Parts: sequence; structure tokens; C-alpha cells
Amino acid sequence: MREDFNPEDLTVSWIQQVHAYVPGEQPQSKGWVKLNTNENPYPPSAQVAKAVAEQIEALRLYPQPQSQSLRVAIAERFALTADQVIIGNGSDNILDMITRSFVGLGQAGHSVPSYSLYPVVVGLSGGDLINIPFEASMELPIDVIAKTPASVFFLTNPNAPTGVCFSLDAIETILQKIQGILVVDEAYIDFGGTSAAALLASYKNLIVVQTFSKAHSLAGLRVGYALADASIIAILDRVRDAYNVDRLAQAGALAALQDRAQFDANTARIVQTRSDAQAKLDALGWFTYPSKANFLFTQPVDASGSNGAQVAKSLFEYLKANHILVRYFDIHPLTCSFLRVSIGTDSEMKSFFGGIESWLKQELQN
Amino acid sequence: MREDFNPEDLTVSWIQQVHAYVPGEQPQSKGWVKLNTNENPYPPSAQVAKAVAEQIEALRLYPQPQSQSLRVAIAERFALTADQVIIGNGSDNILDMITRSFVGLGQAGHSVPSYSLYPVVVGLSGGDLINIPFEASMELPIDVIAKTPASVFFLTNPNAPTGVCFSLDAIETILQKIQGILVVDEAYIDFGGTSAAALLASYKNLIVVQTFSKAHSLAGLRVGYALADASIIAILDRVRDAYNVDRLAQAGALAALQDRAQFDANTARIVQTRSDAQAKLDALGWFTYPSKANFLFTQPVDASGSNGAQVAKSLFEYLKANHILVRYFDIHPLTCSFLRVSIGTDSEMKSFFGGIESWLKQELQN
Repeated sequence: MREDFNPEDLTVSWIQQVHAYVPGEQPQSKGWVKLNTNENPYPPSAQVAKAVAEQIEALRLYPQPQSQSLRVAIAERFALTADQVIIGNGSDNILDMITRSFVGLGQAGHSVPSYSLYPVVVGLSGGDLINIPFEASMELPIDVIAKTPASVFFLTNPNAPTGVCFSLDAIETILQKIQGILVVDEAYIDFGGTSAAALLASYKNLIVVQTFSKAHSLAGLRVGYALADASIIAILDRVRDAYNVDRLAQAGALAALQDRAQFDANTARIVQTRSDAQAKLDALGWFTYPSKANFLFTQPVDASGSNGAQVAKSLFEYLKANHILVRYFDIHPLTCSFLRVSIGTDSEMKSFFGGIESWLKQELQN
Repeated sequence: MREDFNPEDLTVSWIQQVHAYVPGEQPQSKGWVKLNTNENPYPPSAQVAKAVAEQIEALRLYPQPQSQSLRVAIAERFALTADQVIIGNGSDNILDMITRSFVGLGQAGHSVPSYSLYPVVVGLSGGDLINIPFEASMELPIDVIAKTPASVFFLTNPNAPTGVCFSLDAIETILQKIQGILVVDEAYIDFGGTSAAALLASYKNLIVVQTFSKAHSLAGLRVGYALADASIIAILDRVRDAYNVDRLAQAGALAALQDRAQFDANTARIVQTRSDAQAKLDALGWFTYPSKANFLFTQPVDASGSNGAQVAKSLFEYLKANHILVRYFDIHPLTCSFLRVSIGTDSEMKSFFGGIESWLKQELQN
């Protein structure tokens, strides 16, 4: 027996201080209206099932180490070459590779609020994170970002959790001035934003990160990718696990990429549903940020006309008690009076608005 | 334009020095007898196809963050609790999590030759690697390992590339004396070795790593796992990417785990084929290490009765020219006169021995 042994004593100092990323709730039981983690409400392309089934026999063999077929297909889509593309086990894996390659014990920057994984991956690499605050206007603080001394700056575009989209002009200004690498995290770009991929031809200090999780309905398959200059991709490839993406994920993502018709139809449908939902929130008199993502960030107003953290929390809990899950970020002053609601099917959105209606009624009775 | 930008200038110092892991060749064309990367020659359980197909519609949703169903099933198999199990995107992902958690810029140890990924993951975390050499006898240098000052020591059991298996007694002696964590990497344990999992009840400084890649015929699915004290698993979970294993991988691995009959039959078949192949190599008069893995490490002897690096290389290249791939590790004096051949189907082994026969004949003619 070795009762004296305590693994905390051996734990790397910065790992001792890391707080793991807290994902949104993933209830395993049925019957939830799940509008809390920005999943696509529609199933993936029918071609995915076929492509995956074809790979089953071959599962005894290792996958393509570099996901080469998928790299080539993505490169073609963006008029790039395959050496400008790297595939990750989800875009989270890409963000981690970037941090390990270019941050280490150094500095990274991000604007707040944005994706709460950045502090985690920077913490895992032992680095320091520079926080650039947004104002409530969500205007991009271009000059402050451009002056950041960090080797990597993460910009979520469209922003999460607000959904606000920044212009390519603003991004280009940053690229011209910033010392380090600008990572434009475009997880939600397909719902109305304009990708910074067009700037890759002119800027070697740009990494564009995208994912199959959202617009391609493949959050469960874990496939993301980065587009960048070949010199950057070569370094990320050094850090990438040799077989980081499995056969089924490579094949499924490739099939989804090739089914453009289904992608376009689904995306258009979500954009339309978002527009309808925005109109309903406007009609309630709730402030909602203009969104180019597959979610809306809205500030609930209760029956007495008040908003604030208590109001947002009250609605969040009321909805949850009625098996409707949305996301509430209680920590930050710019988020604590808001709820983030993913765009679901028409039926799910009806449940959501039905939930709001009965919450308002219930409050009047109290 | 930013022509002055060079990403090497921003690259973390230890990443600049990392040499990426070089996986065995994965030819994408057909017609190869592929005995170079220890893949299982038989397809996975028929239950895998069914389990994977059932998950396709649900791919729009994130997977279980902790692969909880699979953790529970693996825990049951080893009479452990789920908090003693963590699932990785391949066991390589597990090895990387261990290094990031407990090595960092510190020290890790391994015995040489063994799995060539250890230097890569240690390099990626910025750590130093202590190399403990094996003698040609492949006897475990218990006392030297036990005195290693590293926070983590990687022991491959059965060893790769020799296939030699170490006793639990030897492992227990190390566990009693070593300061740090002993990682017993059991990728090949199911082909005749005895797992150190039985020692987990007594030793909190033990991590047992296993994989679905080999005995479960799922190299292409990327699922590995670690068994350890709950206090170690909790730290690894801090470092683990929140959604590191996709839905199809979780479901496929679970289905394979539950099909014990197919697993037993396949494993027995490979052990029998290994025994037959060993006998044939013995008949050729070639020294082959006694293997408890799904490969044999053998020292070719040419028609003139010589062995050595030139002989091994000659056979390797002859086989490759005839579309038979085995693995040749030219760097280390203990490996450079050997070839590692994965155990294939009867037909593949026939091709391999046919290749040897014609190589010997061809040499006589030269």
C-alpha cells in the first residue's frame, strides 16, 4: 500500500489552478426542449449515415493521420491549398493546439465576454490571459486589441454569447497592427456573417477557425478546422496528435461538406426562425443584440417592467422547471441580465415563447 | 500585407524542438499486406455498426462530456467505480493528458526501446525525458526504474516493439519504491499478458492505460482509457477537453466492449496465428522475442547466415517492393537488426512468409 501518495503533490503548478470548462447541461433523458448549447435543431445530411456506414469494416485500420481527404475538400471550398488547412477533434482541439504552439507560458488575449474555453486552454498551457472588455454596445475595441502584446488574440466572430458580428474592415485593421496572431473563431459564421478567410491571402498572422458542430449539425462528431498560412499550419501539425480525428468523423464531415443543398436549406431555415424570434422578442419590448449566429441574446423584462439579473435568473429557472433549457451566464455584468437562447425548430421556439408567456402570467398572479 | 511576419518567432521554445510522432505508413491504395502498425486483421464486432447507426440522427447534439456510459461499462469490467476511469480520444490522448498534468516542464521517464510517442508528448509539455536502457535480454531494470526521480514513468507492457511481457511482481516492486506515478501502458495486454489493473486496489501511484485500437479492432475509432485512483482521474479530467470523444466513438466502443464472445474468439485466433508464425521463424533459425502482443519482433538472417541492420533493411525493402509492409526501426542498436511484423490473417501471414522465402532465394541468385 502507498497511502502516503497524493497526486496533487505531483501536479504541474498551473494545472492545479485550472478550472475545467463547464459545458452546458447535456441531459440524457428525453423530453427536453434543448436551446442551451447552440446545437442545430435539424439532423445532419443523409449522406453522413452512408459515409459512416462505409467505414465500419475499415475501423480496424488507423485513420488518415492528417485527415488528408477532408483537408483537400475544405481547401477547395475556400480556394486554398491543403497545406493551409488542419483538422481538429472539434475546434476546441484546434484552439488548444494554437495555445500550446504559440502561447505556452506567455500571453494570450481575448475580449470579454466571449467563448469561455479560451481561459481554459490558456490555463492548460500555463499562460496568462489578457482580458479586453467589451462595452454594452459590443463595439469592437479595435485599437486596444491591436495594441495587445499577446502572441495570440482570440476573437469570436460572430461573438458569443451576444451573436454580434464584426466587419471584415475592423478585422483587417487589427491584422495590420497587431504584433501576434489573430485567431478569428468563426464557429457561427454560416448564419449570416462574412468569413475572414478572404483575408488569408494578405495576412500571414491570421488563423480562421471553423467547425462542423453548428451549421453542419455535427456537434456530436467533433470536427473543427483551422485555415492559415502554410507556415502556421506546419507548426500546429507538430503539436497535433498523430491520429486526432477518427475514421467516422473524417468521413462524416466530408459527406456533410459535400451536401451543399442540405446545408444551405438548413441554414436559411434557421436564419428565418431567428428573424421571427427576434421580432417576437422585440414585440415583448426586450432588448436583444442583433445576431448573426444561431442564437439570440436577450434581456428579459418581467411583468412589472423590470430587467436585471434576478429577472433573467427567474425566467431561466422557470423555463428549466418546465423542461425548457436555455443558457444563463451569471458571472459577468454584461451577461447576467440576459439569457441566450439557441434557435430551435418552430415547435421548440413555440415552447420557448409559450414558456415566457406563462412565466409573465404567473408573475402577475404572484 | 504582413510579409515580415514569421510564426516561428512566436513559437513556444520547446515546441520549436518537438519532432512530431511519425506514424507507420498508412497507404490509402488497396492491395497492400499491411503488417506494419499492429492493427487487428479482423473487423470489429458486428454490434459496432448497429450502435453507430443508431447515433447518426443524434449527431446534431453534443456527446456525453465524460463518456459516462462507457466509463461505467469499463469500470464494471474491471470491478472499479466510474470515477476510476477516464476515456481518451485514443490512448495517445490519455498519455498526453498524463504528461500535461504531472510532467509539465519537469521530468518523465521511460525505458528504451518502447513506444516512440512518449518523447513526443513529453516534448510537447516542455519536459525532460529520462531514458532507461533495456539490455538485449529485455529484462526489466526494476531497481533503476524504481530510483527514477521523474514524476511519471511510462512502462509499456507488453513492451513494444519486442512484445516481451513483464510480471506483475516486477511491476509491484516498482510501485512500492518509485517516487512518482507509474503508467503501465497496456495497449497489447489482451494477447496474453496480465493486466496491472489488479494492483489498483493497493497502489494509488498507478495508472493503467488500455485501448480499443488493438484487441477490439477499432484503431480507426480512437478510443483509449485510463484506470487509476479517483484522485488521479479527477486531475486528468481537469486537463481533458470537455468533449474529447465523439458520439460514434463512444457508442462503437461500448458495443465492442459488450460483445465479449467476438473479442475472445478474435483474440484467441490471433494468439494461435502468432504461435504458428513464431514456430516458422524458429524453423528459419531467426531469433524472435517471446511475444504476448499481436506482433513479433524477429531478427532476419540472410541466405549467407548473417544478420544485422543491412539484412533487416534489405528484407524490409524487399517486402515493401512486393507490397508487404512491416515495420523497421533503424535508429536504436537493439532494434536495427530486427523487423516488427503484426499478426495478420492466415492469408497475410502466408504472403509474409512467401516474401521471406523469395527474398532468401533472390539473395542466393545474387
